[in-house]
Amino acid sequence: MSKIPVGVLGATGTVGQRFVQLLANHPWFEVVAVTGSDRTVGRPYGEGVNWLMSGEVPSQTAALVVQPTGLDLGIPGNPPVVFSALPTTEAKEWEPQFAAAGYAVVTNTSVFRMSPTVPLLIPEVNPEHTRLIPTQRRENNWPGFIVASPNCSTTSAILPLKVFQEAFGVESAIITTLQAISGAGYPGVSSMDIYDNVVPYIGGEDEKLQNEPTKLLGEVREGRMMTAPISISAQANRVPVIDGHLASVSVKLGRRATAAEAIDALRAWRPPSVVAQLPSSPKELLIYRDEPDRPQPRRDRDAGDGLAWTVGKVRECPVLDIRYMSLTHNTLRGAASGALLNAELLVVQGFIGGGTELSSNGHQRTAAAIR
Amino acid sequence: MSKIPVGVLGATGTVGQRFVQLLANHPWFEVVAVTGSDRTVGRPYGEGVNWLMSGEVPSQTAALVVQPTGLDLGIPGNPPVVFSALPTTEAKEWEPQFAAAGYAVVTNTSVFRMSPTVPLLIPEVNPEHTRLIPTQRRENNWPGFIVASPNCSTTSAILPLKVFQEAFGVESAIITTLQAISGAGYPGVSSMDIYDNVVPYIGGEDEKLQNEPTKLLGEVREGRMMTAPISISAQANRVPVIDGHLASVSVKLGRRATAAEAIDALRAWRPPSVVAQLPSSPKELLIYRDEPDRPQPRRDRDAGDGLAWTVGKVRECPVLDIRYMSLTHNTLRGAASGALLNAELLVVQGFIGGGTELSSNGHQRTAAAIR
Amino acid sequence: MSKIPVGVLGATGTVGQRFVQLLANHPWFEVVAVTGSDRTVGRPYGEGVNWLMSGEVPSQTAALVVQPTGLDLGIPGNPPVVFSALPTTEAKEWEPQFAAAGYAVVTNTSVFRMSPTVPLLIPEVNPEHTRLIPTQRRENNWPGFIVASPNCSTTSAILPLKVFQEAFGVESAIITTLQAISGAGYPGVSSMDIYDNVVPYIGGEDEKLQNEPTKLLGEVREGRMMTAPISISAQANRVPVIDGHLASVSVKLGRRATAAEAIDALRAWRPPSVVAQLPSSPKELLIYRDEPDRPQPRRDRDAGDGLAWTVGKVRECPVLDIRYMSLTHNTLRGAASGALLNAELLVVQGFIGGGTELSSNGHQRTAAAIR
Amino acid sequence: MSKIPVGVLGATGTVGQRFVQLLANHPWFEVVAVTGSDRTVGRPYGEGVNWLMSGEVPSQTAALVVQPTGLDLGIPGNPPVVFSALPTTEAKEWEPQFAAAGYAVVTNTSVFRMSPTVPLLIPEVNPEHTRLIPTQRRENNWPGFIVASPNCSTTSAILPLKVFQEAFGVESAIITTLQAISGAGYPGVSSMDIYDNVVPYIGGEDEKLQNEPTKLLGEVREGRMMTAPISISAQANRVPVIDGHLASVSVKLGRRATAAEAIDALRAWRPPSVVAQLPSSPKELLIYRDEPDRPQPRRDRDAGDGLAWTVGKVRECPVLDIRYMSLTHNTLRGAASGALLNAELLVVQGFIGGGTELSSNGHQRTAAAIR
Repeated sequence: MSKIPVGVLGATGTVGQRFVQLLANHPWFEVVAVTGSDRTVGRPYGEGVNWLMSGEVPSQTAALVVQPTGLDLGIPGNPPVVFSALPTTEAKEWEPQFAAAGYAVVTNTSVFRMSPTVPLLIPEVNPEHTRLIPTQRRENNWPGFIVASPNCSTTSAILPLKVFQEAFGVESAIITTLQAISGAGYPGVSSMDIYDNVVPYIGGEDEKLQNEPTKLLGEVREGRMMTAPISISAQANRVPVIDGHLASVSVKLGRRATAAEAIDALRAWRPPSVVAQLPSSPKELLIYRDEPDRPQPRRDRDAGDGLAWTVGKVRECPVLDIRYMSLTHNTLRGAASGALLNAELLVVQGFIGGGTELSSNGHQRTAAAIR
Repeated sequence: MSKIPVGVLGATGTVGQRFVQLLANHPWFEVVAVTGSDRTVGRPYGEGVNWLMSGEVPSQTAALVVQPTGLDLGIPGNPPVVFSALPTTEAKEWEPQFAAAGYAVVTNTSVFRMSPTVPLLIPEVNPEHTRLIPTQRRENNWPGFIVASPNCSTTSAILPLKVFQEAFGVESAIITTLQAISGAGYPGVSSMDIYDNVVPYIGGEDEKLQNEPTKLLGEVREGRMMTAPISISAQANRVPVIDGHLASVSVKLGRRATAAEAIDALRAWRPPSVVAQLPSSPKELLIYRDEPDRPQPRRDRDAGDGLAWTVGKVRECPVLDIRYMSLTHNTLRGAASGALLNAELLVVQGFIGGGTELSSNGHQRTAAAIR
Repeated sequence: MSKIPVGVLGATGTVGQRFVQLLANHPWFEVVAVTGSDRTVGRPYGEGVNWLMSGEVPSQTAALVVQPTGLDLGIPGNPPVVFSALPTTEAKEWEPQFAAAGYAVVTNTSVFRMSPTVPLLIPEVNPEHTRLIPTQRRENNWPGFIVASPNCSTTSAILPLKVFQEAFGVESAIITTLQAISGAGYPGVSSMDIYDNVVPYIGGEDEKLQNEPTKLLGEVREGRMMTAPISISAQANRVPVIDGHLASVSVKLGRRATAAEAIDALRAWRPPSVVAQLPSSPKELLIYRDEPDRPQPRRDRDAGDGLAWTVGKVRECPVLDIRYMSLTHNTLRGAASGALLNAELLVVQGFIGGGTELSSNGHQRTAAAIR
Repeated sequence: MSKIPVGVLGATGTVGQRFVQLLANHPWFEVVAVTGSDRTVGRPYGEGVNWLMSGEVPSQTAALVVQPTGLDLGIPGNPPVVFSALPTTEAKEWEPQFAAAGYAVVTNTSVFRMSPTVPLLIPEVNPEHTRLIPTQRRENNWPGFIVASPNCSTTSAILPLKVFQEAFGVESAIITTLQAISGAGYPGVSSMDIYDNVVPYIGGEDEKLQNEPTKLLGEVREGRMMTAPISISAQANRVPVIDGHLASVSVKLGRRATAAEAIDALRAWRPPSVVAQLPSSPKELLIYRDEPDRPQPRRDRDAGDGLAWTVGKVRECPVLDIRYMSLTHNTLRGAASGALLNAELLVVQGFIGGGTELSSNGHQRTAAAIR
């Protein structure tokens, strides 16, 4: 049994560090290459990185020499796999080059999220969107491909929307978020801006929240992305909380439903069957709490090792139909762990790791079925 | 020139203390009686109170002996005037008795806010609602009366709604609030509950936010309250901020308007003319800020000595029509200062302070006009 | 292999809950009885408790019916074992009664910490102080006994003091602490008191910090406690941090030492050999960090599962001899986990659990040696 | 009556902005020139500055065009006066050039604080240290001069030390500070570093705290600085507080004193007589509070408009002699306001503003006496 070798692009930033941390004990993947900023290139990762995660730098990765971001990273595999945590401008420049050079690019960046042939992916929400990959390859004439994970604020609100879409249809939603400071990276938000304060603005966030769900909840038909016809109004706020994005959402449904029916739908929902094969997906993925004062960031963000959605306060809305509060851990489910789950899905579906004998609990490659 | 003597009921609690502090240098009122909890009765206020305001206990009030709440407070005036900051159960018991005994009761409590003949009052929003007072007196056979000020979260959102109602009509609104910890009084919220956290629940707050605006924006016709037919959906959240309630609001208008038209309406709006005679109303009452990241609690709560509304981010809403962010200082505009302004209005309108020669800047009693 | 049955007194408070949580998966102990407040007596623990720990109430304990605190708890064992998290007044009343009735009382309360025959115990610091137990039994004519763990602020500063005492002698120390809000329990500190603030006072804490180390660092000679002749000056402060007590300490040594020698002493120090047999004691117990800005509460409190000391900034002191910063997790090492370690020590030393076949990694009872 | 024209160097940074704000309504000074960063040069100050103070940019200053820092600022006066809030490297380069060009440089920067002929000045502590100015001019052959104000953490602890020095003598002190985030400027401390945390390190701060008091408490004899022979041990900590530096101090006195004597000394202390002529010095300069839990940053930092010292918890120290807690507002008393007071002192002493008819309350120039 061997692991799939992977690279991490932009490994010295906060999301890159999280990738390194999460991959350290991953059953299927192991890091064999890291790229980083000029300041760190040429030095062992463990020395060059300003490690902000808890615990120590994982020892195997610590010993890797930081490379400049480039196409000759020496990662074996067909396709070779890279996780991208590059800054936006570098992601724009490099991710297509990697795909063109044959890499599978699993990215957490925002650049290509809304590109029509790039799957915007949450395995538990829309695993079948990887059907865009062949189209993407063909249209760009790429041997490799890019898959993206959504913005962390989109993620916090999306799973209940998906459930309601399946159960009742969704026409529109009004979302106000209360987002944690860790979402801005490091050094990120100045303490002078956020202490004893709320900042009702996060650059570009409202647009992402208004657009990304239409893609996540859309359909791939004959290799083409059909976004869902849902109108969304979003107001993102930064609050003095370290981790955990909370969303207050009101929804206009396709057909009316009572709060009780909506809660039943949440409780009855089961993720797509492929999810059972993903080692990182938590046992309890969607936690509905009855208490009137939940979810709360500090008390609920770590549910399911930071990968579960905690939902509460489903009530009828006097203006639209149904409202709810939803929470996810923004740097785990909403960032690195989400992208890692995408990679696990790609393995199960056969897009990466071909020929590797994985230490799985007997998963079966279902790629044939999906492609 | 003499001042109007007033009493403060429940003067030892946080709102009561704020009344005492604000009244210390008021041009029209002076505190001559205070009531308080059993623990403090019989002691000089300055010794009995656990003073939580900044600075020292105002010296004149400090010397007053705390009385038990009762009808024989020895306050001169016709009617004698009391500000009520009583706990809810005591307010329910005592406020009607004071009105029945001939007092003008200016209350900050919630008990009678929605009573059909009690004016729910913000002088800058609906000063003409005092027309309910004669009805209230007649129906209850009271020589005195009660006027109430709204909940602090209602207050934070209401002024822009009023402006939009006048300009375009308002059909419905979805409100998510981010409320400060001081709104819960002292000791109020445990630090273990709110630090690094958001609590998406404040007991009774959503109902207040959904009901009170319909009264504030309603009309008094022939001495009867006609609430406004506006549907409101509210989700109140407690955030780790000391002072300042922020509201994220989306509005369905009576007729469509662009964001530019809505901003113009806010900028063009002028308060009712009677407001010019109120010594505490700030020079700039409604501040519209163009920056994309305002209003912010810490940076805007003290505008107009804590009595102004700061509004920002007026944008078109993809689901309803217009959205905005609005902020007020919850313990000043939203509580004690708001009630104090109500008392100033009652003076100008002739309901209290009759016969007193006030040190005003030449205000004219307009009571005849209003009644 | 069976476990040692134990009871938890005061199991519904925050420290009691922490005991329940920690004992849920303990290799040697299992909870068979819980006592709680009047409000909860007679109900299943899982229903009566207002659970404030992360995760859910452990299922076995959840099913136990809460009993009133009393001597007939039905705990088997010779002696039967109880962990005490009682409120101070109840601890004062009940703990001696339990000892008199034959129980081994492992307490986290402060009442008997300074009693001359009650061991004030940290297994890694002074495991031999259990030699006081026979004296305690004899003098009180008790079949059972009490052992106590120190105050959480004492704990944060103590281990480096112990190391320096062994290496150089310690004559005096000046300690300023920066303590977390969780130390005050729930609801504990009002958010209105601590947000954007420091409170330079914690009732009784300075005295505990000045007295307890003299006992912890003292000696038991011929069954008698000889406190160490160390003068301590303490100033305790509450800071807006959730968990983790930080101590700034300057020490007058018995003989001068350079900072380098002091750091060497910390790095070379090894705990008493009995510690290797305690399942909860962390692999790395004393972590010395070279960075100039460590230890920090949020980044270091969870080291060794909240049971390690993190020390940094050892420097020469221009006034006394050596200074340092030291940190522990106040509700784990400083409270419940510390008491649990005391119980583990009592097992290894043969004071409790006699006749039980434990699932240990081959530990040998060393009681004969210690007694 | 006219005002003394002044310039502000580095007027666009946070300390520079504070100067501009404080000078806006100053009775003696008015800003006629501002210098700023390249980005802002050539633009009106009101447009170029990223205003972080409360309220709006003062209108007169808003209209001034930002100049590059240079010697031809066109400030009238003999000497012309500049307040310096330059970054350290620029201060090092420019401040001596300004002095050489004939300017009176009133600086808040750290560069020349410990230079033997530069007065390190707090008017209420050591106003006679301006006697160094003639020496400074002579040795450097400068027509102008530099006076400096101490570090904000030094300031927080110093006034009680001064009082005790006068009353009993001071031999040594151990200081642990709890410092506010605003001390680091803007953006300053990352919220990810300080939220739910303490950082036991502020670059260079311990050294400043150990050195500056020896100069402030020293003597000028025959034009020479004689530092006080006091040993100080300092540990600076950053805590999550917005404004207000708190110091925990233990002192070895020249002769023993009880806590009561020390408190009496604080209460009996009166500032040097020249202080009565300084318009910004607060009526009550040294506030001693008896409550066991004061001073507190949020509750005491604004005392005396942010210019008073609040002291509490004077107790005997079991290791040294006396200990206390002391607090000042770090960006007011500890920075811009402190430097402004220095300028007021220089006016009264005749070093600046010669020939100006000031709107003072009949102050008399005492320069002859001091020189």
